[in-house]
Amino acid sequence: MSKATFLIIAATSAATGASLTALLFSKSAKNAPQPIATPTLKEPPLPVAPALPPAPTPVPVPVPVSAATHPASSVFSPVDPAGILRYGFPGPVTDTLSTPSHLSSFNRATRNPHWVAEHFTPQSLLLNNASRRHSVFYEDLSVPPIFRAKLSDYARSGYDRGHQVPAADAKWSQEAMDSTFVLSNMCPQVGEGFNRDYWAHFEDFCRNLAKKYPSVRVVTGPLYLPKRDERDGKWRVSYEVIGNPPNVAVPTHFYKIIYAEEAQNSPIGKIALGAFVLPNAEIPNAKSLSDFEVPIEAVERASGLLFADKLPVERRKRLCGEVRCEITVREFDKARQQSQQLPPPTSRR
Amino acid sequence: MSKATFLIIAATSAATGASLTALLFSKSAKNAPQPIATPTLKEPPLPVAPALPPAPTPVPVPVPVSAATHPASSVFSPVDPAGILRYGFPGPVTDTLSTPSHLSSFNRATRNPHWVAEHFTPQSLLLNNASRRHSVFYEDLSVPPIFRAKLSDYARSGYDRGHQVPAADAKWSQEAMDSTFVLSNMCPQVGEGFNRDYWAHFEDFCRNLAKKYPSVRVVTGPLYLPKRDERDGKWRVSYEVIGNPPNVAVPTHFYKIIYAEEAQNSPIGKIALGAFVLPNAEIPNAKSLSDFEVPIEAVERASGLLFADKLPVERRKRLCGEVRCEITVREFDKARQQSQQLPPPTSRR
Repeated sequence: MSKATFLIIAATSAATGASLTALLFSKSAKNAPQPIATPTLKEPPLPVAPALPPAPTPVPVPVPVSAATHPASSVFSPVDPAGILRYGFPGPVTDTLSTPSHLSSFNRATRNPHWVAEHFTPQSLLLNNASRRHSVFYEDLSVPPIFRAKLSDYARSGYDRGHQVPAADAKWSQEAMDSTFVLSNMCPQVGEGFNRDYWAHFEDFCRNLAKKYPSVRVVTGPLYLPKRDERDGKWRVSYEVIGNPPNVAVPTHFYKIIYAEEAQNSPIGKIALGAFVLPNAEIPNAKSLSDFEVPIEAVERASGLLFADKLPVERRKRLCGEVRCEITVREFDKARQQSQQLPPPTSRR
Repeated sequence: MSKATFLIIAATSAATGASLTALLFSKSAKNAPQPIATPTLKEPPLPVAPALPPAPTPVPVPVPVSAATHPASSVFSPVDPAGILRYGFPGPVTDTLSTPSHLSSFNRATRNPHWVAEHFTPQSLLLNNASRRHSVFYEDLSVPPIFRAKLSDYARSGYDRGHQVPAADAKWSQEAMDSTFVLSNMCPQVGEGFNRDYWAHFEDFCRNLAKKYPSVRVVTGPLYLPKRDERDGKWRVSYEVIGNPPNVAVPTHFYKIIYAEEAQNSPIGKIALGAFVLPNAEIPNAKSLSDFEVPIEAVERASGLLFADKLPVERRKRLCGEVRCEITVREFDKARQQSQQLPPPTSRR
């Protein structure tokens, strides 16, 4: 596509057209209006973060147009829409990744995870075999290159590489902690006042649940929520995309679904369930965590996911009815950490 | 969550917080901070548009943390992240629908399809057994209620219910045409100047390919493209969400991938491939269709999908190198249609 084409598309819609430039402003596509070689789908997984075998592709079984299902006019169908699958299943394929620290599902359209699931116990949190000083951020090679979040996307973006499963939850082994540093466990997060502050205290709150519960599961992920536009009263989703060309979406919000299990590995034990949605923005430490509690269904509607499909209602309790949903800011600890030359807050970037 | 909670969240982030109100402003969630009953997943499919059995859920197989894969420190893992799957696979689940006219994949987060695939031939287009006057728009009951696009979402939204697979491509039977009216084949489209004009001419262009090719496949779908913000130079995706509460995303662009097959059902025949991206906006009829041609990889990057994964490069030709990529506006036909009291342009709504 020529430069002129860009200009024409841009001129066609001042509101939307210029976007294409972003898509095409990449080395591989820039000069290529011809059909392009099929991109490589899988690269060898990293040893520390073994990729799962690709999840089974949900190829739909074509329903034959028979007299039984369509008695009226179509005894024989002259077309075969499912034949498109001969050229490959278009997707979406969700790249699932299972690491020592977490299980995740990656969204190829936003280059962020759909969700990342972790598990910890009082015992696992007691183990202290790892330091984040030894860990480095790395790209998820199990995601095809054209859909992958890249280290360069975050560079000078103004956003932190925000862990969804926190590194500190995986101190039980260095390789478990290392595996939290894969970019498919990251989203762009506001640093000051959020990732390095309120969000970090929220992660602390989650870990503290292990003082009461023998087993805790947390599912964390991004949201892209609409906001009412004051000018015209319409609801709009609006989010930045970082990288050059633009590649990784900056979520407007983050959710955590917390499953505090009263008994470990019990198929009938009660689960204290909590769902929280926080804006990707500076939050004063004085805010109560309970202000961010939402019905789990609200997160399901917003994300398109289901978080407790197989958890019977009679096994559920409301987490904030069981524990005090407040964050604790340990300024003393923070000061001590810094004086001991432990990882400064910037290591959360 | 109380009204106060809304206010607090909104106050926390002027830019993003008010969004939650939208999510929660629905009868089922409004007064329900308690865990909510699992929503019904499947309702009986409509007879005219049989739903597929649910596609296999891509449940990842947990990779055991063994000494082999993690030789250093983790002979035994104290945690089990994959245990989250006991509460159900979070998804995303893509609702696939196979109808006489099309095969589709539905996006539960945007309430629009990911893609809709169709097939037509010179013979299928010659059959004239259906009229859109007999068809009605209907909701896709194979999609769970909380993720479904609703007729009420489109009402008074200012947008057309824009067919992705056009009704006119399925004139070979009334039930095939009827099945194009399912809302999972729709996206909100600008009416005047787009859905009822340029986009309709583009659909005509596709049908006309059957004069040269014995078999034509088209995959159509929405895009949400970033645009460079003049104020700060940042790239942002911004789109309206229609419905009350906000439910269905309004795409910024639409794509069509066209596969014009030189031979029908040939595993070695050449395929003339074309990829087009049009803004969801008024487009003057004078614009050349070739101005909207893009590399197929651009659509793949933007959508997270793959459209020709199994189509060898040596079988591909460039469609716009084989045919003239221009639209034809038949004002005469339009005038004649109207004088004959055939369906007016509003039937595309």
